[in-house]
Amino acid sequence: MNRVGEVSVAERGEGAPEFGPAFREQLYDLLKWRRDVRRFKRAALPPGTIERLIGIACLSPSVGLSEPWRFVIVEDEGRRAAIRQCFEVCNKDALQMQTQDRAALYARLKLAGLDDAPCQITVFADRATAQGAGLGRLTMPEALDYSVAIAVHTLWLAARAEGIGVGWVSILDPRRIAAILDVPQHWIFIGHLCVGYPVTEDDRPALERAGWEHRHPPAAAVLYR
Amino acid sequence: MNRVGEVSVAERGEGAPEFGPAFREQLYDLLKWRRDVRRFKRAALPPGTIERLIGIACLSPSVGLSEPWRFVIVEDEGRRAAIRQCFEVCNKDALQMQTQDRAALYARLKLAGLDDAPCQITVFADRATAQGAGLGRLTMPEALDYSVAIAVHTLWLAARAEGIGVGWVSILDPRRIAAILDVPQHWIFIGHLCVGYPVTEDDRPALERAGWEHRHPPAAAVLYR
Repeated sequence: MNRVGEVSVAERGEGAPEFGPAFREQLYDLLKWRRDVRRFKRAALPPGTIERLIGIACLSPSVGLSEPWRFVIVEDEGRRAAIRQCFEVCNKDALQMQTQDRAALYARLKLAGLDDAPCQITVFADRATAQGAGLGRLTMPEALDYSVAIAVHTLWLAARAEGIGVGWVSILDPRRIAAILDVPQHWIFIGHLCVGYPVTEDDRPALERAGWEHRHPPAAAVLYR
Repeated sequence: MNRVGEVSVAERGEGAPEFGPAFREQLYDLLKWRRDVRRFKRAALPPGTIERLIGIACLSPSVGLSEPWRFVIVEDEGRRAAIRQCFEVCNKDALQMQTQDRAALYARLKLAGLDDAPCQITVFADRATAQGAGLGRLTMPEALDYSVAIAVHTLWLAARAEGIGVGWVSILDPRRIAAILDVPQHWIFIGHLCVGYPVTEDDRPALERAGWEHRHPPAAAVLYR
Protein backbone atom coordinates (compact mmCIF):
# COMPACT_ATOMS: atom_id res chain seq x y z
CA MET A 1 0.00 0.00 0.00
CA ASN A 2 2.84 2.34 0.88
CA ARG A 3 4.20 3.66 -2.36
CA VAL A 4 6.98 5.69 -0.74
CA GLY A 5 10.38 4.18 -1.35
CA GLU A 6 9.09 1.91 -4.09
CA VAL A 7 12.01 0.93 -6.29
CA SER A 8 11.96 2.03 -9.88
CA VAL A 9 11.97 -1.45 -11.34
CA ALA A 10 9.78 -4.34 -10.28
CA GLU A 11 10.97 -6.23 -7.23
CA ARG A 12 12.51 -9.18 -9.01
CA GLY A 13 11.53 -12.58 -7.73
CA GLU A 14 14.35 -15.10 -7.48
CA GLY A 15 15.25 -16.32 -10.94
CA ALA A 16 12.99 -13.81 -12.72
CA PRO A 17 13.86 -13.93 -16.41
CA GLU A 18 14.73 -10.89 -18.50
CA PHE A 19 13.23 -10.82 -21.96
CA GLY A 20 15.26 -8.97 -24.54
CA PRO A 21 14.47 -7.58 -27.99
CA ALA A 22 15.65 -10.77 -29.74
CA PHE A 23 13.16 -12.86 -27.79
CA ARG A 24 10.36 -10.36 -28.41
CA GLU A 25 11.06 -10.46 -32.14
CA GLN A 26 10.85 -14.25 -32.14
CA LEU A 27 7.67 -14.13 -30.08
CA TYR A 28 6.21 -11.80 -32.69
CA ASP A 29 7.26 -14.27 -35.40
CA LEU A 30 5.62 -17.10 -33.49
CA LEU A 31 2.35 -15.19 -33.30
CA LYS A 32 2.62 -14.22 -36.95
CA TRP A 33 3.40 -17.74 -38.17
CA ARG A 34 0.97 -19.62 -35.94
CA ARG A 35 -1.67 -21.02 -38.29
CA ASP A 36 -4.97 -22.80 -37.99
CA VAL A 37 -3.66 -25.90 -39.72
CA ARG A 38 -5.95 -28.03 -41.91
CA ARG A 39 -3.48 -30.14 -43.86
CA PHE A 40 -1.41 -32.50 -41.78
CA LYS A 41 1.12 -35.21 -42.48
CA ARG A 42 0.14 -38.55 -41.07
CA ALA A 43 3.41 -39.02 -39.16
CA ALA A 44 2.76 -39.64 -35.48
CA LEU A 45 4.02 -37.28 -32.81
CA PRO A 46 6.75 -38.75 -30.58
CA PRO A 47 5.26 -40.51 -27.54
CA GLY A 48 4.53 -38.13 -24.67
CA THR A 49 4.49 -35.02 -26.88
CA ILE A 50 0.82 -34.16 -26.41
CA GLU A 51 0.99 -34.72 -22.65
CA ARG A 52 4.00 -32.39 -22.50
CA LEU A 53 2.19 -29.71 -24.52
CA ILE A 54 -0.85 -30.07 -22.24
CA GLY A 55 1.47 -29.59 -19.27
CA ILE A 56 2.62 -26.27 -20.75
CA ALA A 57 -1.00 -25.28 -21.49
CA CYS A 58 -1.74 -25.71 -17.78
CA LEU A 59 0.48 -22.68 -17.05
CA SER A 60 -2.35 -20.56 -18.50
CA PRO A 61 -4.27 -18.09 -16.40
CA SER A 62 -7.63 -19.24 -15.05
CA VAL A 63 -10.34 -17.39 -13.18
CA GLY A 64 -9.81 -17.87 -9.43
CA LEU A 65 -7.05 -20.40 -10.24
CA SER A 66 -9.86 -22.79 -11.06
CA GLU A 67 -7.92 -24.57 -13.85
CA PRO A 68 -11.22 -25.67 -15.44
CA TRP A 69 -9.59 -27.16 -18.57
CA ARG A 70 -10.20 -30.83 -19.35
CA PHE A 71 -8.35 -32.49 -22.21
CA VAL A 72 -9.71 -35.65 -23.79
CA ILE A 73 -7.18 -37.41 -25.98
CA VAL A 74 -9.24 -39.23 -28.59
CA GLU A 75 -7.55 -42.44 -29.68
CA ASP A 76 -10.41 -44.84 -30.30
CA GLU A 77 -11.11 -45.25 -34.02
CA GLY A 78 -14.86 -45.58 -33.50
CA ARG A 79 -15.08 -42.33 -31.57
CA ARG A 80 -12.91 -40.55 -34.11
CA ALA A 81 -15.21 -41.73 -36.90
CA ALA A 82 -18.26 -40.52 -34.95
CA ILE A 83 -16.69 -37.07 -34.50
CA ARG A 84 -15.91 -36.96 -38.22
CA GLN A 85 -19.53 -37.82 -39.01
CA CYS A 86 -20.74 -35.09 -36.64
CA PHE A 87 -18.51 -32.62 -38.49
CA GLU A 88 -19.95 -33.70 -41.85
CA VAL A 89 -23.53 -33.11 -40.70
CA CYS A 90 -22.74 -29.69 -39.19
CA ASN A 91 -20.63 -28.70 -42.18
CA LYS A 92 -23.51 -29.48 -44.54
CA ASP A 93 -25.85 -27.27 -42.50
CA ALA A 94 -23.27 -24.50 -42.47
CA LEU A 95 -22.90 -24.77 -46.24
CA GLN A 96 -26.60 -24.06 -46.71
CA MET A 97 -26.23 -20.82 -44.75
CA GLN A 98 -23.87 -19.38 -47.38
CA THR A 99 -24.67 -17.69 -50.68
CA GLN A 100 -23.96 -19.76 -53.78
CA ASP A 101 -20.51 -18.37 -54.62
CA ARG A 102 -19.55 -18.40 -50.97
CA ALA A 103 -20.81 -21.99 -50.68
CA ALA A 104 -18.58 -23.12 -53.52
CA LEU A 105 -15.59 -21.54 -51.85
CA TYR A 106 -16.65 -22.93 -48.49
CA ALA A 107 -16.80 -26.43 -49.97
CA ARG A 108 -13.28 -26.08 -51.31
CA LEU A 109 -11.85 -24.96 -47.99
CA LYS A 110 -10.45 -27.99 -46.32
CA LEU A 111 -12.07 -27.24 -43.00
CA ALA A 112 -10.91 -30.16 -40.97
CA GLY A 113 -7.76 -32.15 -40.58
CA LEU A 114 -9.86 -34.92 -39.10
CA ASP A 115 -8.70 -37.47 -41.64
CA ASP A 116 -4.98 -36.95 -41.40
CA ALA A 117 -4.00 -35.44 -38.06
CA PRO A 118 -2.31 -38.17 -36.01
CA CYS A 119 -3.38 -36.65 -32.71
CA GLN A 120 -6.82 -35.37 -31.78
CA ILE A 121 -7.90 -33.85 -28.51
CA THR A 122 -11.25 -32.48 -27.44
CA VAL A 123 -11.17 -29.71 -24.90
CA PHE A 124 -13.88 -28.99 -22.33
CA ALA A 125 -14.51 -26.53 -19.50
CA ASP A 126 -15.62 -28.05 -16.22
CA ARG A 127 -18.34 -25.59 -15.20
CA ALA A 128 -18.87 -27.41 -11.90
CA THR A 129 -15.32 -27.50 -10.60
CA ALA A 130 -14.98 -26.65 -6.90
CA GLN A 131 -11.41 -25.48 -7.49
CA GLY A 132 -11.04 -21.73 -7.01
CA ALA A 133 -14.10 -21.63 -4.72
CA GLY A 134 -16.10 -19.63 -7.23
CA LEU A 135 -13.79 -16.60 -7.18
CA GLY A 136 -14.53 -14.26 -10.08
CA ARG A 137 -17.29 -16.49 -11.42
CA LEU A 138 -20.39 -15.05 -9.77
CA THR A 139 -21.01 -12.32 -12.34
CA MET A 140 -19.39 -14.18 -15.22
CA PRO A 141 -19.50 -18.00 -15.13
CA GLU A 142 -18.37 -17.92 -18.77
CA ALA A 143 -14.97 -16.74 -17.51
CA LEU A 144 -14.32 -20.47 -16.96
CA ASP A 145 -14.78 -21.08 -20.68
CA TYR A 146 -12.46 -18.19 -21.52
CA SER A 147 -9.77 -19.72 -19.30
CA VAL A 148 -10.01 -22.92 -21.32
CA ALA A 149 -9.89 -21.09 -24.67
CA ILE A 150 -6.69 -19.43 -23.45
CA ALA A 151 -5.22 -22.80 -22.47
CA VAL A 152 -5.89 -24.00 -26.02
CA HIS A 153 -4.03 -20.95 -27.31
CA THR A 154 -1.07 -21.68 -25.03
CA LEU A 155 -0.93 -25.26 -26.31
CA TRP A 156 -1.13 -23.91 -29.85
CA LEU A 157 1.83 -21.56 -29.39
CA ALA A 158 3.95 -24.16 -27.57
CA ALA A 159 3.23 -26.65 -30.38
CA ARG A 160 4.09 -24.17 -33.15
CA ALA A 161 7.39 -23.38 -31.41
CA GLU A 162 8.23 -27.07 -31.93
CA GLY A 163 7.10 -27.13 -35.55
CA ILE A 164 3.83 -28.85 -34.66
CA GLY A 165 0.58 -27.54 -36.09
CA VAL A 166 -2.83 -27.25 -34.47
CA GLY A 167 -6.22 -26.87 -36.16
CA TRP A 168 -9.27 -25.87 -34.12
CA VAL A 169 -12.54 -27.42 -35.33
CA SER A 170 -15.66 -25.66 -34.07
CA ILE A 171 -18.14 -26.86 -36.71
CA LEU A 172 -19.44 -29.54 -34.38
CA ASP A 173 -22.52 -30.14 -32.24
CA PRO A 174 -21.34 -29.68 -28.63
CA ARG A 175 -23.92 -32.09 -27.14
CA ARG A 176 -23.20 -34.81 -29.64
CA ILE A 177 -19.46 -34.53 -29.00
CA ALA A 178 -19.99 -34.81 -25.25
CA ALA A 179 -22.08 -37.94 -25.83
CA ILE A 180 -19.54 -39.52 -28.19
CA LEU A 181 -16.77 -38.99 -25.64
CA ASP A 182 -18.89 -39.91 -22.62
CA VAL A 183 -17.80 -37.01 -20.45
CA PRO A 184 -19.58 -35.58 -17.36
CA GLN A 185 -22.69 -33.48 -18.08
CA HIS A 186 -21.28 -30.28 -16.61
CA TRP A 187 -18.37 -30.28 -19.02
CA ILE A 188 -18.86 -27.62 -21.72
CA PHE A 189 -17.40 -28.35 -25.14
CA ILE A 190 -14.85 -25.70 -26.14
CA GLY A 191 -13.16 -27.11 -29.21
CA HIS A 192 -11.78 -30.15 -30.98
CA LEU A 193 -8.11 -29.93 -31.91
CA CYS A 194 -6.22 -31.67 -34.68
CA VAL A 195 -2.52 -31.84 -33.87
CA GLY A 196 0.35 -32.97 -36.07
CA TYR A 197 3.07 -31.88 -38.44
CA PRO A 198 1.78 -29.35 -40.99
CA VAL A 199 2.23 -29.87 -44.71
CA THR A 200 3.09 -26.21 -45.25
CA GLU A 201 4.05 -23.16 -43.21
CA ASP A 202 2.71 -19.71 -43.93
CA ASP A 203 2.39 -16.30 -42.35
CA ARG A 204 -1.01 -15.64 -43.90
CA PRO A 205 -4.22 -17.18 -42.59
CA ALA A 206 -5.56 -19.96 -44.83
CA LEU A 207 -8.91 -18.16 -45.09
CA GLU A 208 -7.13 -15.08 -46.39
CA ARG A 209 -5.16 -17.10 -48.94
CA ALA A 210 -8.41 -18.73 -50.05
CA GLY A 211 -10.04 -15.33 -50.55
CA TRP A 212 -12.65 -15.93 -47.85
CA GLU A 213 -11.81 -12.98 -45.66
CA HIS A 214 -8.91 -10.65 -45.00
CA ARG A 215 -7.43 -9.06 -41.93
CA HIS A 216 -8.50 -5.56 -40.97
CA PRO A 217 -6.26 -2.86 -39.50
CA PRO A 218 -6.12 -3.06 -35.69
CA ALA A 219 -7.09 0.62 -35.35
CA ALA A 220 -10.56 -0.29 -36.63
CA ALA A 221 -11.09 -2.33 -33.45
CA VAL A 222 -10.12 0.44 -31.00
CA LEU A 223 -12.35 3.01 -29.31
CA TYR A 224 -11.43 5.71 -26.80
CA ARG A 225 -13.84 6.50 -23.97
CA MET B 1 -4.09 -34.83 -51.50
CA ASN B 2 -1.28 -36.87 -53.00
CA ARG B 3 0.95 -37.82 -50.14
CA VAL B 4 3.51 -39.61 -52.31
CA GLY B 5 6.73 -37.68 -52.50
CA GLU B 6 5.82 -35.39 -49.64
CA VAL B 7 8.98 -33.95 -48.19
CA SER B 8 9.87 -34.86 -44.66
CA VAL B 9 9.72 -31.32 -43.33
CA ALA B 10 6.97 -28.76 -43.89
CA GLU B 11 7.13 -26.83 -47.13
CA ARG B 12 8.69 -23.69 -45.76
CA GLY B 13 7.03 -20.43 -46.70
CA GLU B 14 9.40 -17.62 -47.61
CA GLY B 15 10.97 -16.23 -44.47
CA ALA B 16 9.52 -18.95 -42.24
CA PRO B 17 11.25 -18.68 -38.89
CA GLU B 18 12.95 -21.55 -37.13
CA PHE B 19 12.40 -21.72 -33.41
CA GLY B 20 15.23 -23.30 -31.45
CA PRO B 21 15.48 -24.71 -27.94
CA ALA B 22 16.69 -21.37 -26.50
CA PHE B 23 13.55 -19.61 -27.73
CA ARG B 24 11.32 -22.40 -26.46
CA GLU B 25 12.92 -22.17 -23.04
CA GLN B 26 12.27 -18.43 -22.91
CA LEU B 27 8.71 -18.95 -24.11
CA TYR B 28 8.24 -21.41 -21.26
CA ASP B 29 9.65 -18.79 -18.85
CA LEU B 30 7.26 -16.19 -20.26
CA LEU B 31 4.29 -18.48 -19.65
CA LYS B 32 5.58 -19.35 -16.20
CA TRP B 33 6.23 -15.74 -15.15
CA ARG B 34 3.13 -14.18 -16.67
CA ARG B 35 1.00 -13.08 -13.73
CA ASP B 36 -2.46 -11.70 -13.15
CA VAL B 37 -1.12 -8.44 -11.76
CA ARG B 38 -3.03 -6.58 -9.04
CA ARG B 39 -0.39 -4.18 -7.73
CA PHE B 40 0.81 -1.60 -10.22
CA LYS B 41 3.10 1.38 -10.12
CA ARG B 42 1.42 4.57 -11.21
CA ALA B 43 4.02 5.40 -13.85
CA ALA B 44 2.39 5.88 -17.25
CA LEU B 45 3.20 3.66 -20.20
CA PRO B 46 5.12 5.39 -23.02
CA PRO B 47 2.71 6.94 -25.58
CA GLY B 48 1.55 4.43 -28.20
CA THR B 49 2.42 1.38 -26.08
CA ILE B 50 -1.12 0.09 -25.64
CA GLU B 51 -1.94 0.60 -29.32
CA ARG B 52 1.17 -1.36 -30.25
CA LEU B 53 0.24 -4.19 -27.88
CA ILE B 54 -3.29 -4.23 -29.31
CA GLY B 55 -1.74 -4.49 -32.78
CA ILE B 56 0.12 -7.63 -31.68
CA ALA B 57 -3.07 -9.02 -30.08
CA CYS B 58 -4.74 -8.72 -33.47
CA LEU B 59 -2.46 -11.49 -34.77
CA SER B 60 -4.56 -13.90 -32.70
CA PRO B 61 -6.65 -16.62 -34.29
CA SER B 62 -10.35 -15.88 -34.73
CA VAL B 63 -13.19 -18.07 -35.89
CA GLY B 64 -13.69 -17.59 -39.64
CA LEU B 65 -11.13 -14.74 -39.52
CA SER B 66 -13.92 -12.68 -37.97
CA GLU B 67 -11.56 -10.64 -35.73
CA PRO B 68 -14.45 -9.91 -33.35
CA TRP B 69 -12.27 -8.19 -30.71
CA ARG B 70 -13.09 -4.61 -29.75
CA PHE B 71 -10.79 -2.70 -27.41
CA VAL B 72 -12.07 0.30 -25.50
CA ILE B 73 -9.28 2.40 -23.99
CA VAL B 74 -10.82 3.99 -20.92
CA GLU B 75 -9.29 7.39 -20.24
CA ASP B 76 -12.18 9.44 -18.87
CA GLU B 77 -11.94 9.80 -15.09
CA GLY B 78 -15.71 9.69 -14.65
CA ARG B 79 -16.04 6.42 -16.53
CA ARG B 80 -13.11 4.94 -14.64
CA ALA B 81 -14.75 5.87 -11.34
CA ALA B 82 -18.04 4.31 -12.48
CA ILE B 83 -16.24 1.06 -13.36
CA ARG B 84 -14.53 1.09 -9.97
CA GLN B 85 -17.91 1.51 -8.28
CA CYS B 86 -19.35 -1.36 -10.32
CA PHE B 87 -16.47 -3.52 -9.13
CA GLU B 88 -17.12 -2.58 -5.50
CA VAL B 89 -20.78 -3.59 -5.72
CA CYS B 90 -20.02 -6.91 -7.42
CA ASN B 91 -17.12 -7.61 -5.08
CA LYS B 92 -19.39 -7.15 -2.06
CA ASP B 93 -21.89 -9.64 -3.48
CA ALA B 94 -19.07 -12.08 -4.21
CA LEU B 95 -17.83 -11.72 -0.64
CA GLN B 96 -21.19 -12.83 0.72
CA MET B 97 -20.95 -16.04 -1.30
CA GLN B 98 -17.89 -17.16 0.62
CA THR B 99 -17.62 -18.90 3.99
CA GLN B 100 -16.38 -16.73 6.85
CA ASP B 101 -12.71 -17.67 6.77
CA ARG B 102 -12.71 -17.56 2.99
CA ALA B 103 -14.39 -14.16 3.08
CA ALA B 104 -11.68 -12.74 5.32
CA LEU B 105 -9.02 -14.00 2.91
CA TYR B 106 -11.03 -12.77 -0.05
CA ALA B 107 -11.22 -9.29 1.48
CA ARG B 108 -7.46 -9.24 1.91
CA LEU B 109 -6.80 -10.21 -1.70
CA LYS B 110 -6.21 -7.07 -3.62
CA LEU B 111 -8.53 -8.04 -6.43
CA ALA B 112 -8.25 -5.04 -8.64
CA GLY B 113 -5.56 -2.72 -9.81
CA LEU B 114 -8.29 -0.22 -10.66
CA ASP B 115 -6.82 2.48 -8.46
CA ASP B 116 -3.24 2.41 -9.63
CA ALA B 117 -2.96 0.98 -13.14
CA PRO B 118 -2.17 3.86 -15.49
CA CYS B 119 -3.86 2.16 -18.45
CA GLN B 120 -7.24 0.47 -18.50
CA ILE B 121 -8.92 -1.20 -21.42
CA THR B 122 -12.24 -2.97 -21.63
CA VAL B 123 -12.50 -5.76 -24.15
CA PHE B 124 -15.65 -6.82 -25.97
CA ALA B 125 -16.69 -9.38 -28.58
CA ASP B 126 -18.77 -8.07 -31.46
CA ARG B 127 -21.34 -10.84 -31.79
CA ALA B 128 -22.90 -9.16 -34.83
CA THR B 129 -19.82 -8.67 -36.99
CA ALA B 130 -20.31 -9.54 -40.65
CA GLN B 131 -16.60 -10.25 -41.00
CA GLY B 132 -15.93 -13.94 -41.62
CA ALA B 133 -19.43 -14.44 -43.06
CA GLY B 134 -20.49 -16.61 -40.15
CA LEU B 135 -17.94 -19.35 -40.83
CA GLY B 136 -17.67 -21.74 -37.88
CA ARG B 137 -20.25 -19.82 -35.86
CA LEU B 138 -23.47 -21.64 -36.69
CA THR B 139 -23.09 -24.38 -34.09
CA MET B 140 -21.04 -22.29 -31.69
CA PRO B 141 -21.59 -18.51 -31.70
CA GLU B 142 -19.59 -18.39 -28.46
CA ALA B 143 -16.49 -19.19 -30.55
CA LEU B 144 -16.44 -15.43 -31.19
CA ASP B 145 -16.03 -14.81 -27.46
CA TYR B 146 -13.24 -17.40 -27.28
CA SER B 147 -11.40 -15.59 -30.07
CA VAL B 148 -11.49 -12.41 -28.00
CA ALA B 149 -10.33 -14.16 -24.82
CA ILE B 150 -7.36 -15.45 -26.82
CA ALA B 151 -6.58 -11.94 -28.10
CA VAL B 152 -6.47 -10.79 -24.47
CA HIS B 153 -4.01 -13.58 -23.75
CA THR B 154 -1.82 -12.54 -26.68
CA LEU B 155 -1.77 -8.95 -25.44
CA TRP B 156 -0.92 -10.27 -21.97
CA LEU B 157 2.07 -12.26 -23.20
CA ALA B 158 3.35 -9.46 -25.45
CA ALA B 159 3.09 -7.04 -22.51
CA ARG B 160 4.88 -9.34 -20.09
CA ALA B 161 7.72 -9.78 -22.61
CA GLU B 162 8.21 -6.00 -22.27
CA GLY B 163 8.04 -6.02 -18.47
CA ILE B 164 4.47 -4.71 -18.49
CA GLY B 165 1.87 -6.38 -16.30
CA VAL B 166 -1.80 -7.09 -17.02
CA GLY B 167 -4.58 -7.83 -14.55
CA TRP B 168 -7.91 -9.22 -15.74
CA VAL B 169 -10.92 -8.03 -13.76
CA SER B 170 -14.03 -10.17 -14.22
CA ILE B 171 -15.89 -9.24 -11.01
CA LEU B 172 -18.04 -6.75 -12.89
CA ASP B 173 -21.60 -6.55 -14.19
CA PRO B 174 -21.32 -6.91 -17.99
CA ARG B 175 -24.47 -4.85 -18.74
CA ARG B 176 -23.45 -2.03 -16.46
CA ILE B 177 -19.98 -1.87 -18.03
CA ALA B 178 -21.48 -1.71 -21.52
CA ALA B 179 -23.69 1.17 -20.37
CA ILE B 180 -20.84 3.07 -18.71
CA LEU B 181 -18.77 2.83 -21.87
CA ASP B 182 -21.67 3.45 -24.26
CA VAL B 183 -20.85 0.65 -26.69
CA PRO B 184 -23.17 -1.03 -29.24
CA GLN B 185 -25.72 -3.45 -27.80
CA HIS B 186 -24.37 -6.48 -29.63
CA TRP B 187 -20.96 -6.12 -28.02
CA ILE B 188 -20.45 -8.77 -25.34
CA PHE B 189 -18.26 -7.82 -22.38
CA ILE B 190 -15.26 -10.14 -22.09
CA GLY B 191 -13.02 -8.49 -19.52
CA HIS B 192 -11.60 -5.29 -18.11
CA LEU B 193 -7.82 -5.08 -18.13
CA CYS B 194 -5.51 -3.09 -15.90
CA VAL B 195 -2.18 -2.51 -17.62
CA GLY B 196 1.00 -1.01 -16.18
CA TYR B 197 4.33 -1.75 -14.58
CA PRO B 198 4.02 -4.36 -11.84
CA VAL B 199 5.34 -3.75 -8.33
CA THR B 200 6.73 -7.29 -8.10
CA GLU B 201 7.49 -10.22 -10.35
CA ASP B 202 6.78 -13.80 -9.38
CA ASP B 203 6.46 -17.25 -10.89
CA ARG B 204 3.66 -18.27 -8.53
CA PRO B 205 0.06 -17.14 -8.97
CA ALA B 206 -0.98 -14.51 -6.41
CA LEU B 207 -3.92 -16.67 -5.35
CA GLU B 208 -1.53 -19.52 -4.58
CA ARG B 209 0.76 -17.24 -2.59
CA ALA B 210 -2.27 -15.99 -0.67
CA GLY B 211 -3.31 -19.55 0.18
CA TRP B 212 -6.57 -19.31 -1.77
CA GLU B 213 -5.98 -22.16 -4.15
CA HIS B 214 -3.07 -24.14 -5.55
CA ARG B 215 -2.24 -25.59 -8.90
CA HIS B 216 -3.08 -29.19 -9.63
CA PRO B 217 -0.97 -31.62 -11.66
CA PRO B 218 -1.84 -31.47 -15.39
CA ALA B 219 -2.42 -35.23 -15.52
CA ALA B 220 -5.55 -34.73 -13.40
CA ALA B 221 -7.08 -32.80 -16.31
CA VAL B 222 -6.45 -35.46 -18.96
CA LEU B 223 -8.72 -38.31 -20.07
CA TYR B 224 -8.14 -40.92 -22.77
CA ARG B 225 -11.07 -42.03 -24.90
